[in-house]
Amino acid sequence: MPAYLGIDLGGTSVKLGVCGPAGDVRARASLETRVTAGSDDAMRRITDAARELVAEAGTVAACGVGVPGEIDRARGLLVRASHFPDWADVPVVARLSGTLGTSVTLENDANCSAWSEARAGAGRGVRSLACFTLGTGVGGGVIIDGDLWTGAGGAAGALGHIVVDPNGPECRCGQRGCVEQYASATAIARRFGRGSARDAFDAARRGEPDAVATVEWACDGLAAGVANLIHILQPDVVVLAGGVAAAGDALVDRVRRGVARRVRAAWLAPVRIVCSSLGDDAGWIGAALWAAR
Amino acid sequence: MPAYLGIDLGGTSVKLGVCGPAGDVRARASLETRVTAGSDDAMRRITDAARELVAEAGTVAACGVGVPGEIDRARGLLVRASHFPDWADVPVVARLSGTLGTSVTLENDANCSAWSEARAGAGRGVRSLACFTLGTGVGGGVIIDGDLWTGAGGAAGALGHIVVDPNGPECRCGQRGCVEQYASATAIARRFGRGSARDAFDAARRGEPDAVATVEWACDGLAAGVANLIHILQPDVVVLAGGVAAAGDALVDRVRRGVARRVRAAWLAPVRIVCSSLGDDAGWIGAALWAAR
Repeated sequence: MPAYLGIDLGGTSVKLGVCGPAGDVRARASLETRVTAGSDDAMRRITDAARELVAEAGTVAACGVGVPGEIDRARGLLVRASHFPDWADVPVVARLSGTLGTSVTLENDANCSAWSEARAGAGRGVRSLACFTLGTGVGGGVIIDGDLWTGAGGAAGALGHIVVDPNGPECRCGQRGCVEQYASATAIARRFGRGSARDAFDAARRGEPDAVATVEWACDGLAAGVANLIHILQPDVVVLAGGVAAAGDALVDRVRRGVARRVRAAWLAPVRIVCSSLGDDAGWIGAALWAAR
Repeated sequence: MPAYLGIDLGGTSVKLGVCGPAGDVRARASLETRVTAGSDDAMRRITDAARELVAEAGTVAACGVGVPGEIDRARGLLVRASHFPDWADVPVVARLSGTLGTSVTLENDANCSAWSEARAGAGRGVRSLACFTLGTGVGGGVIIDGDLWTGAGGAAGALGHIVVDPNGPECRCGQRGCVEQYASATAIARRFGRGSARDAFDAARRGEPDAVATVEWACDGLAAGVANLIHILQPDVVVLAGGVAAAGDALVDRVRRGVARRVRAAWLAPVRIVCSSLGDDAGWIGAALWAAR
């Protein structure tokens, strides 16, 4: 069975691994991104790590890279990314394909996560799926008829910028009350005021009232976005992924309740709302399986 | 070239016609629905009108019916419709196919309108399209990869129930601030307070301040819903259809401006926002072309 290399380039760390065509993990590694050291430095270390991983796993048939920003698919560039302020037009494909001697595919990281959940994760084999990746920001990806839907210009699936309250917190996109301003790790930590999103979920589990209120607020904001998406697409599965989804039932149960308050029971009945089943591996596995497509 | 019969069953009138495979109109007719006279009476008059039309146009290869409510596709029933309070489980397909001697297809009326715009109207030949039908309520339909997307359970495209303000007006669906509560003819007339939605647009054209404010409010509510949809789907075309879309540029120019305030220029650039090019014929032509599929 062929093997595929996937690389998930994040703002804090880079996760990479080799998997089979069903997403079965054969090897994995991770390294710090060190954004401030620049893209040349990062690309050198990523390329080294990828070469080592391939040497360990044997040959790979293709390599996929998921990146959190705007990409130029034709030229294989990471054009820019909001969490990488000094990186511009990074030749990701050229750098990696030269070293690895294999084809390299570049795709948005949240699209990769959606793809991995549809192919190897919580929505394996379904016809349609929407994936909210809850991290520093909120990314998204949409699968329709078993294929990634990227829209008229590659920007579909910007699920973090579904507005749920026009009087809500300002968003970097220029709107107010985007899902990202409620359900990202950043938004939850800001609202909590005394720790990270994970701390907020931990404190909520212990019953601390301000933490419970924060978590309810975040989950309700996300639920409002999910409800809007269901009214438009009614997908088979909605997956909650990314770091915040590590909260598991504490997240997904609240989101399900918030959606049920908004969507007619008959319309909601065929839609499953679940947490990612791939966790931290979703990004790189999705990139690998996207390259394998 | 084969001909197809389409029937658009509305709360006030029934529009029907015969068209060719490209939506070219060969004959048309209309009659009052008379909801309060009951479904038996209406189905008898519709069947008579359909038979006359077919006699006039020659034979038809198939018949499609668009209805504004919940349907049972397997049994060919209009299960219920909010604007037809006493109608239940109307055997639309059985009644018509018996008389016409041809296959009859039942579909949601707003899905039919979306289909007609994608096949014969403002979005002819595009890969993806979303259609907002602005009438008594606000219906919707979504075309993805050239096909109607009905979702996991047939309820996708409920574009009138995209929430744009959780503190907005109450909606019959149980939510608040749905697009329907801003951009339906009903919502516009209620807000205007001294006439119909058409009167509001006419008075706005004459510069009457309360009418201008009403129209701006309606178009901004719709624009917020369109922006949410673009962030999720980024379709090639967004079509505004239904009675309110008769306002033409006075509607679409305002909606475009409202969307441009919300969606990043690069994401919006590939998306066309236009009014229906089929007007009152969109529903029945869509039903006919859906049956022809």
